[in-house]
Amino acid sequence: MAFLTADDIALLNEPQLAHVATIEADGTPHVTPVWVDTDGEHVIFNTAKGRVKHRNLERNPVVAISVSDRANDYRTLWIKGTVEMTTEGADEHIDRMAKKYLDKDTYPFRKPGEERVIVKVTPTQRLSQG
Amino acid sequence: MAFLTADDIALLNEPQLAHVATIEADGTPHVTPVWVDTDGEHVIFNTAKGRVKHRNLERNPVVAISVSDRANDYRTLWIKGTVEMTTEGADEHIDRMAKKYLDKDTYPFRKPGEERVIVKVTPTQRLSQG
Repeated sequence: MAFLTADDIALLNEPQLAHVATIEADGTPHVTPVWVDTDGEHVIFNTAKGRVKHRNLERNPVVAISVSDRANDYRTLWIKGTVEMTTEGADEHIDRMAKKYLDKDTYPFRKPGEERVIVKVTPTQRLSQG
Repeated sequence: MAFLTADDIALLNEPQLAHVATIEADGTPHVTPVWVDTDGEHVIFNTAKGRVKHRNLERNPVVAISVSDRANDYRTLWIKGTVEMTTEGADEHIDRMAKKYLDKDTYPFRKPGEERVIVKVTPTQRLSQG
């Protein structure tokens, strides 16, 4: 059954910033902004191996994600989900995200030796209240 | 010692949206957007009794907060902190926040019987990496 609505997918297809919360080793929350993408079923973002988010998700593959329209605080998506990660296609994916967010053909912030990771989130719950 | 820099305080004084992550009873993360404020030392937001964020913070008074400039994704503040909550002055505070964010003298989304809460976050850590 589809979880994401047409409105959710429209929001995710725009260059809006998502804020992704994960759980640290000590049980405290971590939240940072990420570029976001969707295949119509999953919420997808891209990180790099060894970053805090990646390490947290290797240990505990659950996330909460909040996306707001920059121009309208009330046009939002808040979900929780479980995560699968892959390096396959992750370099091409971050380049596509650079196109979407920066209108650049290649991701300009790549670091030497950095290994990119696609994080595919299967939504499990809609957060209805802050 | 001051934790928040002049740049942090400037960002928090603008009507930018903060995304606040808390920990649910089952240990999973929760994140939703909130209006945000500062007294120059603390990050301050306003919620209502019984909401998910309030219940989570009563159980576990730790937060992670990510604030981004709507017009510049790279102008951001990411912190963790510990929380103190009070109902004292919380009604007046949400009205001041409505002035800041909506240019309205009174918070227009008040619900019957709702008890507002000021959440005062003492920053403990700057998140340097996603």
